[in-house]
Amino acid sequence: MSGEEAPARQQQESAEEKTENPPTEEPPSEAAQEGEPSPAEEPADEPAAATPDRAPVAPDEEVFSYRALFLTGYGGYDKVKLQVKKGKPSLKNAEVLVRVKACGLNFAELLGRQGMYELLPSPPVTPGMECSGVIEALGEEVTDRKVGDRVLVLSRHGLWQEVVVVPASQTFIMPESMSFEEAAALPVNYLTAYMMLFEMANVRAGQSILIHMAAGGVGIAATQLCQLLEDVTVFGTASASKHETISQGGVTHPIDYRTRDYAEEIRKISPKGLDVVLDPLGGSDTQKAFSLLKPMGTLIVFGAANCVTGQKKNLLAVAKTWYNQFTINTLRLMHANKAVCGFHLGYLSDEELITQTMTRLLELYTQGKIKPRIDSTYHFEQVGDAMRRMHERNNIGKVILLPEPKKEEEKPESNPEPAETEDKKEEEKDENKMETGTEEVKREEN
Amino acid sequence: MSGEEAPARQQQESAEEKTENPPTEEPPSEAAQEGEPSPAEEPADEPAAATPDRAPVAPDEEVFSYRALFLTGYGGYDKVKLQVKKGKPSLKNAEVLVRVKACGLNFAELLGRQGMYELLPSPPVTPGMECSGVIEALGEEVTDRKVGDRVLVLSRHGLWQEVVVVPASQTFIMPESMSFEEAAALPVNYLTAYMMLFEMANVRAGQSILIHMAAGGVGIAATQLCQLLEDVTVFGTASASKHETISQGGVTHPIDYRTRDYAEEIRKISPKGLDVVLDPLGGSDTQKAFSLLKPMGTLIVFGAANCVTGQKKNLLAVAKTWYNQFTINTLRLMHANKAVCGFHLGYLSDEELITQTMTRLLELYTQGKIKPRIDSTYHFEQVGDAMRRMHERNNIGKVILLPEPKKEEEKPESNPEPAETEDKKEEEKDENKMETGTEEVKREEN
Repeated sequence: MSGEEAPARQQQESAEEKTENPPTEEPPSEAAQEGEPSPAEEPADEPAAATPDRAPVAPDEEVFSYRALFLTGYGGYDKVKLQVKKGKPSLKNAEVLVRVKACGLNFAELLGRQGMYELLPSPPVTPGMECSGVIEALGEEVTDRKVGDRVLVLSRHGLWQEVVVVPASQTFIMPESMSFEEAAALPVNYLTAYMMLFEMANVRAGQSILIHMAAGGVGIAATQLCQLLEDVTVFGTASASKHETISQGGVTHPIDYRTRDYAEEIRKISPKGLDVVLDPLGGSDTQKAFSLLKPMGTLIVFGAANCVTGQKKNLLAVAKTWYNQFTINTLRLMHANKAVCGFHLGYLSDEELITQTMTRLLELYTQGKIKPRIDSTYHFEQVGDAMRRMHERNNIGKVILLPEPKKEEEKPESNPEPAETEDKKEEEKDENKMETGTEEVKREEN
Repeated sequence: MSGEEAPARQQQESAEEKTENPPTEEPPSEAAQEGEPSPAEEPADEPAAATPDRAPVAPDEEVFSYRALFLTGYGGYDKVKLQVKKGKPSLKNAEVLVRVKACGLNFAELLGRQGMYELLPSPPVTPGMECSGVIEALGEEVTDRKVGDRVLVLSRHGLWQEVVVVPASQTFIMPESMSFEEAAALPVNYLTAYMMLFEMANVRAGQSILIHMAAGGVGIAATQLCQLLEDVTVFGTASASKHETISQGGVTHPIDYRTRDYAEEIRKISPKGLDVVLDPLGGSDTQKAFSLLKPMGTLIVFGAANCVTGQKKNLLAVAKTWYNQFTINTLRLMHANKAVCGFHLGYLSDEELITQTMTRLLELYTQGKIKPRIDSTYHFEQVGDAMRRMHERNNIGKVILLPEPKKEEEKPESNPEPAETEDKKEEEKDENKMETGTEEVKREEN
């Protein structure tokens, strides 16, 4: 993600700096439980606590409090807890304080909860790589943002909070027509898809591409972005109940990977092979992907979703995925005339490229050429349900988290697409309706 | 190379078909020695003999003879022999007969002579992947070529002959202003460079690139093609005596790899790394190349020139190169956000792509944007000297072979660039002048 200093890390740094910068009158916050049914495991070492160490704190800020999610340990859904932090976070010169309206859930957070995402610091830690909201305060040196700006935010982690403090350079002004949910759904999936397609693979008009998990966040983004070019043939894997939706989104040939050998299906239609394969699966699927490429074709590996099966870490799945990890030598690459690339937004430190690409994506949104598809929204206290939805591959598009408390009697907002196809193998578990539809698991890591 | 049916292979097929198609009155040719000082090793199984098995032979064709080079076994320069073939080759429907004026020498032929180029059939065989000449006869179905057309020809092997028969689809009409030497120098080097730069790496304005062997055939082609884009920074390795020439050709930072650690030099100038590295060397240099890439950078391996040291196969160099062969897994690629590609024109079977690219290259030539640099020309009987020149890295640009016999008293035509730099480590061995200059060994395989 852009920015070396993710909010949570900054806050950790702030805590560490306490000896140098004596604490203000504001006492260290005590996290409180709210709307969280399971007994709270108080984080032993609260890293993201709002302990302002620089800015003087006005008396009224003593009552400033906000909701935040914490990963308290590795394991199942219950390891993510809702807490209330007290005390207004301090702002450094180049930072802004954002009142968060919506957060994106990514596959990285599912991996992180299982202890398999090395970019997430050890618990207790606040996850969250993307959010949207309104700027509420500016650091002294910030001149290109103003209070009231609607922004989307990208970070390495730490954004699943009602209030975040981030460098202004990690915020992007939202187009007027964009909803907060869309803004929270865009950064990770669309940056990933755009960079893979146009920076790495250089997809061109008339080419063919395989998009695994075509109903996932990156899958939908990549499918939409392929429509920028003339005559791109998109093969997309998804369970049968999602085929109608992904076809409408631009997938030329939907393939039900649960009932058919997708490689065989593709070879029937494109015996010469494919120009591009996007592989979020890893393991033996990467070998399949490589063999599906035509000469001069490009394989981009951007995840190892095959590692993840159930709610908790599955050592067998991990071992199998790593055992089958694709390894290649240059002689084989030369004989095949093929390209193999790796992509991981989390490890990409080129802020200029990220900013350029985000600017381009927001243009495309304004032009109506891309539009994030929201699968469902969950309040912070429902984060376990949100994760389950993604884990069990019931989403079509993005799962969104909302910091605002769930009202009494409010039903969980989610809208599984009715399974209208004949294939009954897939069970939709969350049947509540909302405006934007449902979707399959985003297996991508980013 | 384009075309599944290379001439020599066709001729082999013709020979094999003899049982079905009884030989004509034309006797199998007896190869004769001409201008070849060493005793001839008659190929045991003459594959490319002109044994017309289809077209009726007119009486005057009985005296039809032409010069051809043969690889008679694996080893040193003396393994390539000049012979005279008799009898006019027959033409199939879609083929043309070309009177060859100039042939290109490629690194693949140096490898082939050492028994290290698996695409060249076993000796005895006629090497030669590119040539230029004039069409002298047409097969019945050929409508888009006419007798007298000046063409360049691309094939897998078999073109080092005074007369070749090839599918018309493997010939390309030469621009009017192009010399036969230029036409023979263009196909392999420029196709390789163009496809790597624009099909695989997608080089863009403002990027940086490392071109090893920048004074070699592919090196010069790649440097010229980079000039099509604004503001591309080209790092080029070559011995010091060639720096002036390659700088004039467009290399921004020439680096003498013999006296300096090129990776260190590049890091001083571009601490963030490079967007693209073209690697014809293999072995440990590939690892260096990978580490020189910036995130989102692309490495293209297109040879293993480090395998080749002396005139004969050096098992130690081969073992060392293979031992150090670059192998990578997808996890490492993801963490690095990098692309690794392999390119080998010889293994590329996409004729449509080759034809499109060649058409583009000929346009660029006509527009004055590319121009093959001829290092030197050698007559067929001097093929050993030509190979030595490339092997010992004395060429700057392309080494050309001429089928026409060397006249008495004619000196070898070659023009080493005077070693004007202060670096005296490199010895120029061939000091004869000609119009177009000299160059370092083309280490690339294609």
